[in-house]
Formats: sequence, C-alpha cells, structure tokens
Amino acid sequence: MRKKRRTISVGNVDIGGDNEISIQSMTNTKTSDIKTTVAQILDLEKEGCEIIRVAVPDVDSANAIKEIKSKINIPIIADIHFDHRLALRSVENGADGLRLNPGNINKKRYIKLVVKKAKEKNIPIRIGVNAGSIDRKRYKHPTPEALVDSALNHIKILEKMNYENIKVSLKSYDVNTTVKSYEIFSNMRDYPLHVGITEAGDFFKGSIRSSIGIGILLYKGLCDTFRVSLTADPMKEVMVAKEILNSLNIRQFGIDIISCPTCGRTEIDISKIVQTVKERTRDINANLKVAIMGCAVNGPGEARDADIGIAGGKKEGLLFEKGEIIGKYPEDKLIELLIERIKKYEND
Amino acid sequence: MRKKRRTISVGNVDIGGDNEISIQSMTNTKTSDIKTTVAQILDLEKEGCEIIRVAVPDVDSANAIKEIKSKINIPIIADIHFDHRLALRSVENGADGLRLNPGNINKKRYIKLVVKKAKEKNIPIRIGVNAGSIDRKRYKHPTPEALVDSALNHIKILEKMNYENIKVSLKSYDVNTTVKSYEIFSNMRDYPLHVGITEAGDFFKGSIRSSIGIGILLYKGLCDTFRVSLTADPMKEVMVAKEILNSLNIRQFGIDIISCPTCGRTEIDISKIVQTVKERTRDINANLKVAIMGCAVNGPGEARDADIGIAGGKKEGLLFEKGEIIGKYPEDKLIELLIERIKKYEND
Repeated sequence: MRKKRRTISVGNVDIGGDNEISIQSMTNTKTSDIKTTVAQILDLEKEGCEIIRVAVPDVDSANAIKEIKSKINIPIIADIHFDHRLALRSVENGADGLRLNPGNINKKRYIKLVVKKAKEKNIPIRIGVNAGSIDRKRYKHPTPEALVDSALNHIKILEKMNYENIKVSLKSYDVNTTVKSYEIFSNMRDYPLHVGITEAGDFFKGSIRSSIGIGILLYKGLCDTFRVSLTADPMKEVMVAKEILNSLNIRQFGIDIISCPTCGRTEIDISKIVQTVKERTRDINANLKVAIMGCAVNGPGEARDADIGIAGGKKEGLLFEKGEIIGKYPEDKLIELLIERIKKYEND
Repeated sequence: MRKKRRTISVGNVDIGGDNEISIQSMTNTKTSDIKTTVAQILDLEKEGCEIIRVAVPDVDSANAIKEIKSKINIPIIADIHFDHRLALRSVENGADGLRLNPGNINKKRYIKLVVKKAKEKNIPIRIGVNAGSIDRKRYKHPTPEALVDSALNHIKILEKMNYENIKVSLKSYDVNTTVKSYEIFSNMRDYPLHVGITEAGDFFKGSIRSSIGIGILLYKGLCDTFRVSLTADPMKEVMVAKEILNSLNIRQFGIDIISCPTCGRTEIDISKIVQTVKERTRDINANLKVAIMGCAVNGPGEARDADIGIAGGKKEGLLFEKGEIIGKYPEDKLIELLIERIKKYEND
C-alpha cells in the first residue's frame, strides 16, 4: 500500500522506497551545551531514536555539531532558520542533513552557497512547512492547498539549482489538514515524506493526536519517516513512535503484550499483572505475543492465538504456550511462570 | 464522509444516521456492588461518558441494574454471555440495551424469549464479535472475514425473528484486522457501528493503539459510537475518547490548547506553562483555541490563528488575542494574563 517514493540517505539511514520507516526526535537542550546534548541523544538512541535533529540558532550550536557527532551513533540534522551561514557551518561540522526552507533565505546567492555545500557533502535538505510558517501575505489560512503550495515554492528553488536530494514535511496541528496536505503533495512529487502533527500538545493530548494523524498517514502509505512532536521529554516521543509502528504491524519493538480491559467479569488483577510483566520484560526484544486475559469469555481464545498467554479465573488462571495448556496455577505462581517462559525466548 | 446507517436508540442516546458520535465506557466494579458501581458511573458521567456498560455475570448483577439505573443519568447496557435468563432479568430491571451474541445461547426458544422481551421494551441488542470469541471450530484464525462472518451468523438469528434493533461491533487487538472488518461489514448491512480496539493494553499502549484504530475508522466514517478499551481506570477511557474526537474536529471538549514541542530554540518553559494553563482552565468549556508557543519561528503565526495565544521570547513573550498583539510581558505575568483572558470566555 505504501506508494513508492525515491530514496534519500541521512547518514546511514535510507529514507523512502521500501526502506524501513524511521523514527526521529529532536533534542530540547541548548545544542551549544555539548555535554547535555550528547547525553540526551545517547538516551534517545538507546530508546530507539534513529535520526536526531538539533536546533541551530547560533554559531556556537553550529560549531558544537562536530563534537556531538563524534560522540553519538545516529545521523544528526541541523535545524536552520533564515541564516545561511549557520547552514554552511553546520554542514562543515558534519551535519548529515539540513532542515531549511530556502524561501526564507533572503538572497539567491546565499541559497546557492548552501546547495553547493550540500551537494559537495551529499546531504539532503528537508523542506518543512508548518501551518504556522506559511507565507501569510499569500495565504490567509493554513489550508492543505496553502501548505502544499508553500512547500512547492521552496522545492522549486532547489529544483532550479538541480538539487533534488529533498525530503518534505507538511505539518499542521489539525489532523485532517495534515492528512489532506500529504495526499495532495504525494500526487505532485515523489520526494520521501517526513510526517508529523505539529504543536500536538503535552504527552496526553499530543500522543493521541499524533497517533491518529501519523497512524492515518502510515495506514495510507504516506509516511517514510516521522517525528512525534510532544511538549514533553523527547524520550516520550520515541516511545510513542515505537508504539505507533507496533500498532500497525509495521515494525515490532519489544514483546507484544495483549491485555483485556478490566471489567466486572475479571477475577484477577490484570492491571497489576500487566505492569509487572511489562517491567520485568522491558529489555527483552523477542518477537513474542503474550496474552494476559482476565476471564474465561475471551481469555482462552486470545491466549491460544498468542505465543504464551494466561487466562484468569478466580484468584488463579490457566497458562498456555503454543496452543497447549501448561497448567492451572494460583495468581502469584502464574506471573512467575509466565515471566520465566517469556525469558526463555530471549536467546532465540 | 460518514456513510449513512440506520438509527437506533439506547435510552435517550440516538446512535447512527447523523447523530453525534457517542462515548461509551464499561465499569470495572462488581455490578452487584451497587454503591461502588453507581459512584463509578457518576464519575464517568461527569467526565463525559454517555453510555455505560456493566458486566452481568450473575443474577445479583442483573437485579442490581434497577437501583443503579435509578441513581444514574445515562443509559445502561447489560453485558451478557451465554445465559438468557440474565438477559431477561436485566431487561426487566430496566437495562437500556443488551450486549449479547444470540449464537452463544444454546436453545432457539431461549433466544426467542430474549427477543420478545427486547421488542416489548424497545431496546437494542449489540452483536459484539471479538477476535477472541469467534467460533474456533469454523475459523482457524481471527481474519476480518471470520469476524464478519461470525457477526452475520449472530445477526441472521435475530433477523429471522424480525428483530433489527441491532448495533454491531467487530473488535480485534489488531488495528488492520479491525479496520478491514468494519469496511467489509459496512458494505453488507447498515446497522450502526460500535467501534473499538479490544485488549488494547495499558494506558500508554492502549491509548495509542485505540487512537490509531478508532481514529482511522472515524476518518473513514465507519463509527457511530465507540469505547476506548484500556487495562486502566475507565475514567481514562473517557478522557482518551474525548481527545480522539477533538483531534478529528468531530466534537469539541474543553478549550483547545495548541502547544509547540520543546526544542533548543525555546527560551520559555512551555511544558510548565501548558500544564499550568491546563490545570487552571480544566472546567472551562468555551469553544476556544489557545496557542502556547515557544519561539518566534512558528509562534506568532500559530498564535495569530488561535483566539488567544502567546509566543515566547527570552524569559518573556507576546500576548495575542483575535489577531491583535496585546503586549509583551515577562513569563509569570504572561501566564496570569492568558488565564485571565481565557476565563473571560467562560460566560459567553
């Protein structure tokens, strides 16, 4: 279902075509504070972030990229606004990509300098149009058409310079606008799509809004890489991103714990069991489907479909594995046996 | 985009057709514990739950419905499995709807009794097929076709008895399976659709998975009412449900706070401001778009589109209202002024 778009490379991460959909995030440190920035990126890498973007509002930040890059293991993208010198400096210092809208640079010869440097180093530029950054003189409202048209104006500047190492984003706070924008754009150009819902909100609101917007775009095959933007710790952005990909079976992170909602039928403490199993299997990356079910109504059915599962009864439950009933055990014993069996798969 | 389906009524809530998409939840108390169940339902009502389902695993629960119903203000649905006597008793005690799969009742004359009673009281029956509860003798795997076929078998039993006061759900843990199931079914019958992702997981995982699954179905117009199923406090189910509807502009709950992700450009503490504003405006239900933006790049643009907004600078920021700049203020003052102005709209 994913429409074929051209492939670009940000460092060692290929984006577009049939390449895996990659997870991005952005640091919220001062980029010039190298120590703190590196620490955050290393945490994000460990969580699963595959491309990191840093803000470059000043020369110190552009210069910091060199040392940051030497200490991290994922590609780094410099986020530039208005000032072409910061772009040049970032690329010289090893940035693997730029996020920069050429239309915001006021002289054509400055844009040419940036393009020349990007070609030299073979790094891509992301055109990133947001509802908040469209040209208000030309467009009264951030409609999908306004977003796409703004993006095309930036793109055409680069295309005229024979530069097509481009990735595009068309982010809005509004989910419908965002989806429509990518739909329209994808029929006009085949550049890889960087997706996101911008200004989505705090963790609660932003993760729901991003899940819906990015989810719909992934479902429609209109996403090659994405960032979940949250007004929260960027670690949360990566955690939500992983869960979005899990939900649509696009990629698999961690073991897959299926659990039923608690209801009046449940006789065992599902919430507690799920939390316990989750915490104690956090570092296991086996491709495993574990069912934790509260009752005899849907429990055994779901549990049988899983690799391992339990189906609760009255303070006790059945343990299943590969479709076979292993036995009936009291609640505490059940959890221990389940975790023990999950861990067996770790070295597979 | 929402396909027209027939309308049914659960108590005073109309479902299907052009009716508002309603929010459901399910208690996790023992239904026979009337006091606790009523307390939970009243909390859920206050949060925004519009239809409540209770488990009816025994006669005490069926009998409890009478008193529960007298103390709550939203329609109540009895969740029945296998035992037709519990269905009859629930309806006699005032249940506004049944969730019951007639194929699971072993004698045709028992089903007839339930249908007769439901007709008498003019209450609908939800056929609810889950991936975990399909007939394993007939279907090896819970494919969309298996889910739809299972549902149709239950439906046909009722249709043969000239009973069409039906609502249908086809829930699976798998988002793609769920979406496909509703797509197939919606081309076969026009009964209103009750949507959900079943066994979605704990709050973190379940809210993401549900947002994607329910979000895609809402986007496709394939949802008339829904429950977010979480292995968590049902209050969370309602909160997530409201945010899903907000995200797609289908309904509006609370004021709409748009905030940018924190990044290296931000000079004010966006997270803190968002949390403060959110907490202090929790009870305000004005149809208001409030932008809380961290920097001069996207900030002013977004803030101008909002009814009220702030765009941060260095420990200070601009306050906007209806497209006009009100002034520049230090961070603390800015928050107070913003909240003050939001509250002005409360009595509109």
